[in-house]
Amino acid sequence: MTDFSGASAAGPASTALLTDRYELTMLRSALASGAAERRTVFEMFARHLPGGRRYGVVAGTTRFLDALERFRFDTPVLDFLSREQVVDEATLEWLAGYEFRGDIWGYPEGDCYLPGSPILVVEATFAEAVLLETLALSIFNHDCAVATAASRMVTAAGQRPLIEMGSRRTHEQAAVAAARAAYIAGFASTSNLAAGQAHGVPTAGTSAHAFTLLHGTEREAFAAQLSALGPGTTLLVDTYDVTAATRIGIELAGTELGAVRIDSGDLSEQASQLRALLDAHGARDTRVVVTGDLDEHAIQALAVAPVDGYGVGTSVVTGSGAPTAALVYKLVARAEHAAPDAPLLPVAKRSVGKPTLGGRKWPVRRFDPDTRTATAEVVYAHEPEPAAFEEPRLVKLVDGGKVVHQESLDTARRRHAATRSALPPAARRMSRGEPAIPTIFENRTDTPEQRRT
Amino acid sequence: MTDFSGASAAGPASTALLTDRYELTMLRSALASGAAERRTVFEMFARHLPGGRRYGVVAGTTRFLDALERFRFDTPVLDFLSREQVVDEATLEWLAGYEFRGDIWGYPEGDCYLPGSPILVVEATFAEAVLLETLALSIFNHDCAVATAASRMVTAAGQRPLIEMGSRRTHEQAAVAAARAAYIAGFASTSNLAAGQAHGVPTAGTSAHAFTLLHGTEREAFAAQLSALGPGTTLLVDTYDVTAATRIGIELAGTELGAVRIDSGDLSEQASQLRALLDAHGARDTRVVVTGDLDEHAIQALAVAPVDGYGVGTSVVTGSGAPTAALVYKLVARAEHAAPDAPLLPVAKRSVGKPTLGGRKWPVRRFDPDTRTATAEVVYAHEPEPAAFEEPRLVKLVDGGKVVHQESLDTARRRHAATRSALPPAARRMSRGEPAIPTIFENRTDTPEQRRT
Repeated sequence: MTDFSGASAAGPASTALLTDRYELTMLRSALASGAAERRTVFEMFARHLPGGRRYGVVAGTTRFLDALERFRFDTPVLDFLSREQVVDEATLEWLAGYEFRGDIWGYPEGDCYLPGSPILVVEATFAEAVLLETLALSIFNHDCAVATAASRMVTAAGQRPLIEMGSRRTHEQAAVAAARAAYIAGFASTSNLAAGQAHGVPTAGTSAHAFTLLHGTEREAFAAQLSALGPGTTLLVDTYDVTAATRIGIELAGTELGAVRIDSGDLSEQASQLRALLDAHGARDTRVVVTGDLDEHAIQALAVAPVDGYGVGTSVVTGSGAPTAALVYKLVARAEHAAPDAPLLPVAKRSVGKPTLGGRKWPVRRFDPDTRTATAEVVYAHEPEPAAFEEPRLVKLVDGGKVVHQESLDTARRRHAATRSALPPAARRMSRGEPAIPTIFENRTDTPEQRRT
Repeated sequence: MTDFSGASAAGPASTALLTDRYELTMLRSALASGAAERRTVFEMFARHLPGGRRYGVVAGTTRFLDALERFRFDTPVLDFLSREQVVDEATLEWLAGYEFRGDIWGYPEGDCYLPGSPILVVEATFAEAVLLETLALSIFNHDCAVATAASRMVTAAGQRPLIEMGSRRTHEQAAVAAARAAYIAGFASTSNLAAGQAHGVPTAGTSAHAFTLLHGTEREAFAAQLSALGPGTTLLVDTYDVTAATRIGIELAGTELGAVRIDSGDLSEQASQLRALLDAHGARDTRVVVTGDLDEHAIQALAVAPVDGYGVGTSVVTGSGAPTAALVYKLVARAEHAAPDAPLLPVAKRSVGKPTLGGRKWPVRRFDPDTRTATAEVVYAHEPEPAAFEEPRLVKLVDGGKVVHQESLDTARRRHAATRSALPPAARRMSRGEPAIPTIFENRTDTPEQRRT
């Protein structure tokens, strides 16, 4: 496995500076005040689901755990922080010895989440936990946004396969993560080769308009492609004239032709014409694949068209109108002093706007006993007793600094299919609306007044 | 300089797989047909400016040139392509010896562009040029989208400085590129430390709500921060009560207090209250900084409020509603055969939708002789004679495979300020609308009919 975010023969690159300067200045101030060693709980959650989505999809967990293992302050990092005077000598010394020793729980990758679901819970000293804020948010906000959009497209496509092909519409490294997130959500494959190499996502792709234009004629181009890639390949037939190109394709490849692809024009109308043309020539197994500015709504509109697969670009890698998941990472509890056994007090911002709910939380999903459909996301203020038809959401990811959670991408992909299908039908609506199930805060402890100015 | 996209002590990571599978299968087919060695011209341009923008901003050039120098097929890359059967043995052999030997021209970084401006022109064999499509598009589509949005925010902010602080709202590597792009567009600094290390962007940041909540009281927190970072620091005053917190800040830091920051609530009203409070206590030099869901429209609305600086997150890193720049990379000319002196023929896709204009292009910007304001983007079909009040846009970036263009980020930043101010006033409108100046295609050669099926 090659890690495109920085691996090499000499060992993986540090992720420690993929963060905001204020994490480091807060550390500096807290080390000076003595508060840095206080035990804390930070939680990551979404206050709302952007774009009127009915549910969110957890993605990024394994990427975050990989990044955590590379979060260390090596000499080039320390030199930069020293040169830029971000921190003082005492902080540099502390950072040189830094390693994360805390515990982390999270929703497993592929699970669905709702507003208020604590999808990541970090328990560690303030110093250790605060440093992870930006890195964790970057990874989850990106990957969850893509997976959430992708999941809707998978619903819209029904049984038809989806190819993710948006690499060119997003940052070159984000493209790799986007391909991975879309695969978790149920996409069949990606055009992105790095995602194949780094994450084992199946890759797909055959040719573009440039290949046809390179040759003297379309016939010449198709013959070259068929000769190199075999008759099972996909021919792109909309460079000049779709019908003429398809006839040439069948003439050259016979009824074994794998697929024809159209990337422009009225996709529904053209798909019907192509299907009729292919059938008339006996090419009943030749698939019709459509691409070109598709999103979940366009895919849904094509449900009645004779389309065998969709390629989706811009809309999936940009979260289809919601390019970030609106996840926040908030301090919800902290010890009164630095002793390891000091009790944790719930804390929360209190001024106007952006309210949060203090205290560590334990989320479960409640199901209807008869239909086994999810009815509510219940967030307890204490660890709940096991109850029938309530499934705890959190799994242990990191134990005393050691990553204890590992699973394949296909496990996450299967989990997503299962958790999505257990949501009520409202979850599968493409319109903007309320979350598919309500979030209920049970036994909540009121946050004690922290304002003691 | 640390390169977060893959550098390490053992040398930088290959960028060769940050591409779409079909680039490799097209190469395979073209090597087999013999067309791979035909000389070609590919151009990158935007058919339109997403979001009704008045102009685009070129960003990503230096990042692309860096990635080009690392675009090579080393053993792990070839092993992957072989294992996945993306290409055949002959193609693997060709790839093992691959290096880009062509020429590349481009608009210099920071320049403005219009629909149809060929901001990158690649002249090389088909084999060499086609492989760069996805990598080039990923880098420019991301960086141009961010820089274009950022430039509007800089206009809206007038003389007031902007801090880019959106790292947590985008992919962790995209965050580094976004900070760089925003700086080119005129932002003063970034919260992203990796952008400071990799690109020399000035970094900023002091503390978050978590730091206040960590301490028993706001007074305790502020005292800790002031003690560690000095009175010139920025105190975040909206954790509990803005007015009370500001009073404590002045009490502890005196009138030397650097700044107060508010991140929630009615920013305009609170800024006015804070300014009055600070002035009443003699803290006339203490700045008021506002953050929290700002975009160019919110910044413009705050123009009359007593605000000294803005922090912008989500909207700048996601292109403020246009997260990708809609740039395409199209084959516009190709030789009839593989001989190096074969003449180039213009080519273009001809079917319905997504039209392109064939043939290599030479863009200039035309200026009004009196006002020195830009009046048109003129795109010639042949290299034009030098003319008064017409400035050629393209500079040579790569000569025979060698990168020949190097410049500092500050050069690009100054160029952007200059080229933006030379656009007519319509360019600085925040509303959706037409491009600031028209694009005129002069002396265009009609594309010969390529359809010889």
